[in-house]
Amino acid sequence: MVILGIDPGIAIMGYGIIEYKHDDFNVLDYGCVRTDSSLNTAKRLEQLYNSILYLVHKYKPEDMAVEELFFNKNAKTAMVIGQARGVCILAGSNCGLKVYEYTPLQVKQGVVGYGRAEKAQVQQMVKTLLKLDSIPKPDDAADALAVAVCHAHSKRVNHLLRE
Amino acid sequence: MVILGIDPGIAIMGYGIIEYKHDDFNVLDYGCVRTDSSLNTAKRLEQLYNSILYLVHKYKPEDMAVEELFFNKNAKTAMVIGQARGVCILAGSNCGLKVYEYTPLQVKQGVVGYGRAEKAQVQQMVKTLLKLDSIPKPDDAADALAVAVCHAHSKRVNHLLRE
Repeated sequence: MVILGIDPGIAIMGYGIIEYKHDDFNVLDYGCVRTDSSLNTAKRLEQLYNSILYLVHKYKPEDMAVEELFFNKNAKTAMVIGQARGVCILAGSNCGLKVYEYTPLQVKQGVVGYGRAEKAQVQQMVKTLLKLDSIPKPDDAADALAVAVCHAHSKRVNHLLRE
Repeated sequence: MVILGIDPGIAIMGYGIIEYKHDDFNVLDYGCVRTDSSLNTAKRLEQLYNSILYLVHKYKPEDMAVEELFFNKNAKTAMVIGQARGVCILAGSNCGLKVYEYTPLQVKQGVVGYGRAEKAQVQQMVKTLLKLDSIPKPDDAADALAVAVCHAHSKRVNHLLRE
């Protein structure tokens, strides 16, 4: 199955697209979308929305996995990220994808197997699992790949539990 | 000109559509959209998005006015409202509307002429200006009409300043 991982943000949105088959991973694409800070909110949200439509059209993922926000941010920041996050979720849903949300704790647990893992450990594990030559840059892209990997593992566990 | 005012929220979104012509107001519609709390975030955001598409198709507004969030809410609440807000703004923008954002202070200033006005004063003024028989219910619909009126006044002031 093909999974689209998203790390939402208004200025920069990370994305990672992986294929997960027979317990093996294949990276199809990853990177980030930067929106122009001189544009108004509406136009920036449109850019995020259209970027996801483009990625879905190109790679035909079945599921979308989105990281939840850390709640230690202030309310203003949370709302701005929330706007971007809402648009990302809507884009996936409007394209017919199933959308799954994971907390940072779940991502760490799902990727490293340990909820209190350091960011560097998560990134190293993403690099290893996805057989990449280096840790993906920027962090937003690495985070998007991590949430996609977390979703793949979560699906696998649920599948095994059903057998 | 026809203005669509929106008071965003995930469980309940208020809307108000007014026509503003020759310094006079005409209410075309107002009300609220409630999303089903048993649905997941993606489906609830889809409902909000599609409701706005429907309203735009029906009333052909040129501008959308959206109220900004009070920042005394906590980060979690702010993110949830932010998601709904982002989707509302995107819906307007995707339909070709110009989207304007107003703080609660600007709405009070724009409707009552006084930034520290009470909620009841704003609602009373909305009722009077829009020649309604009673204060619109629920509050979300009244708030959406208020931000639409605020936008109309703001456009008028900008127009007068240019003359």
